[in-house]
Amino acid sequence: MSLALNQWTTRRWSVAEAVDGCVRHGLEAVGLWREKVAEQGLAQSVKLVREAGLRVSSLCRGGFLTAGGLPGEDGRKAFAQALESNRQAIDEAAELSAACLVMVVGGLPGVRPGEPLPANGFTRDLAGARERVAEALAELAPYAGERGVKLALEPLHPIYCPDRAVLSTLGQALDLSLAYPEEQVGVVVDTFHVWWDPRLFEDIERAGRRIASYQVCDYLHPLPADVLLGRGMMGDGVIDFAPITRAVQAAGYTGDVEVEIFNADIWAADPDEVVATMKARYADVVLATS
Amino acid sequence: MSLALNQWTTRRWSVAEAVDGCVRHGLEAVGLWREKVAEQGLAQSVKLVREAGLRVSSLCRGGFLTAGGLPGEDGRKAFAQALESNRQAIDEAAELSAACLVMVVGGLPGVRPGEPLPANGFTRDLAGARERVAEALAELAPYAGERGVKLALEPLHPIYCPDRAVLSTLGQALDLSLAYPEEQVGVVVDTFHVWWDPRLFEDIERAGRRIASYQVCDYLHPLPADVLLGRGMMGDGVIDFAPITRAVQAAGYTGDVEVEIFNADIWAADPDEVVATMKARYADVVLATS
Repeated sequence: MSLALNQWTTRRWSVAEAVDGCVRHGLEAVGLWREKVAEQGLAQSVKLVREAGLRVSSLCRGGFLTAGGLPGEDGRKAFAQALESNRQAIDEAAELSAACLVMVVGGLPGVRPGEPLPANGFTRDLAGARERVAEALAELAPYAGERGVKLALEPLHPIYCPDRAVLSTLGQALDLSLAYPEEQVGVVVDTFHVWWDPRLFEDIERAGRRIASYQVCDYLHPLPADVLLGRGMMGDGVIDFAPITRAVQAAGYTGDVEVEIFNADIWAADPDEVVATMKARYADVVLATS
Repeated sequence: MSLALNQWTTRRWSVAEAVDGCVRHGLEAVGLWREKVAEQGLAQSVKLVREAGLRVSSLCRGGFLTAGGLPGEDGRKAFAQALESNRQAIDEAAELSAACLVMVVGGLPGVRPGEPLPANGFTRDLAGARERVAEALAELAPYAGERGVKLALEPLHPIYCPDRAVLSTLGQALDLSLAYPEEQVGVVVDTFHVWWDPRLFEDIERAGRRIASYQVCDYLHPLPADVLLGRGMMGDGVIDFAPITRAVQAAGYTGDVEVEIFNADIWAADPDEVVATMKARYADVVLATS
């Protein structure tokens, strides 16, 4: 396993700057975001990472597959649009030779990420939303497989169930993945999202080589008012990383370990200092080798 | 099943006022809090509920059993204190003939509910904290059994794992309960805490008559800055209650259904209006009979 920078951690860096930063700090891999790749241009992004000799540890992100749960024509249109957008994300991941496309599957149909509940036009049918995810996956997994892209289903902390991901546990994501070949569909283990799960260690073992991505950041307590930004540098929160890292390794994961932090203070800091701190904490806290 | 008022929903009401309110609104049961019972006096509280002919659907709350996970003498002292406090809570529940004593088991050792992480003096050993809960339960369950009190283990939403409860899923609470007779240890199904759980329906079925309390309130989205207050009146949030209610009934639960809401707006409102709204929403949303 080796340390990788997810570019959202150094959010103000473009793809070009993140690639330079990785090289400057001796990192071998970078996790990219579609928005940033679009700003840089896909072809230019591909060229930059290749010339720098970097691996693309993930492309973030596909998903948001649940809007099809809205009734009638609205639902059918939303489902078709979600599939189209995801096919495009898969194409981009293929161009970038990304190790996986991270899938944040979406929340309750009609609830937009980070926004209040609409007065109407959303549904509380959680079971139905989960079925829509399975249906979309059946469409997308073969498409991804044909292009050599692995879809990485990311379970999100239950706090994000209303608006971002109805996949709430590693076990649930894993169960969904099992219908597909290992090279088409895997799962993400992100410490922030799964640290509390009483079944975590048995599900990591059960996942084995289905683990497509291991992402680390800490869980701050108390969470800030915008819960999306409750991620912290490893060591600043409540997570005991070393046992999780050992379990992921024991399960057979040999990929990159991305640090992905959504945090207003970290975004405001000097990105080079953030990367330096991240490297130190990775050794001290995540691997606990010191 | 019949509707009960958990007195924290009408937080400014004393035990005497809550008892009067239940009678006035035709409710047959009330869930009491230890703080309120202490203010009213235990003997007086017993007298009030008996004379009013009310059942005490629960006493809230015992628990906070994890501080024993602190190292050395601090841990041993904290563990002994927690046991002592819980024996007292059990005695009170016995006096009140409460249907159960709700157990909020505590978070990471050294992290106080609702407070920031201390600079030091806490531990990230989540697995160890969970073992402390099991150890404490082994002490307390027989004590409760001798007094005819049922301990009701409450899994809390994972957002509360750092500071309030290392029991995070119904399945986990249920597994812990199985070592004891059904009349000594059961589980709480509180919709706010468990609505997102992909294993919810199978674990409700598996729990069967272990369900010692069914509590309802909605999950607001987005959560307020103080996540403790993210509970809403049924119908104001994201939970689809009717399937959960049906599952709890099908599992064999025949007890009271407590409405327990922590919400600044509801606490500021006229308690009689709150109870009237609660009755209407119970019929319309929780039972979905209309």
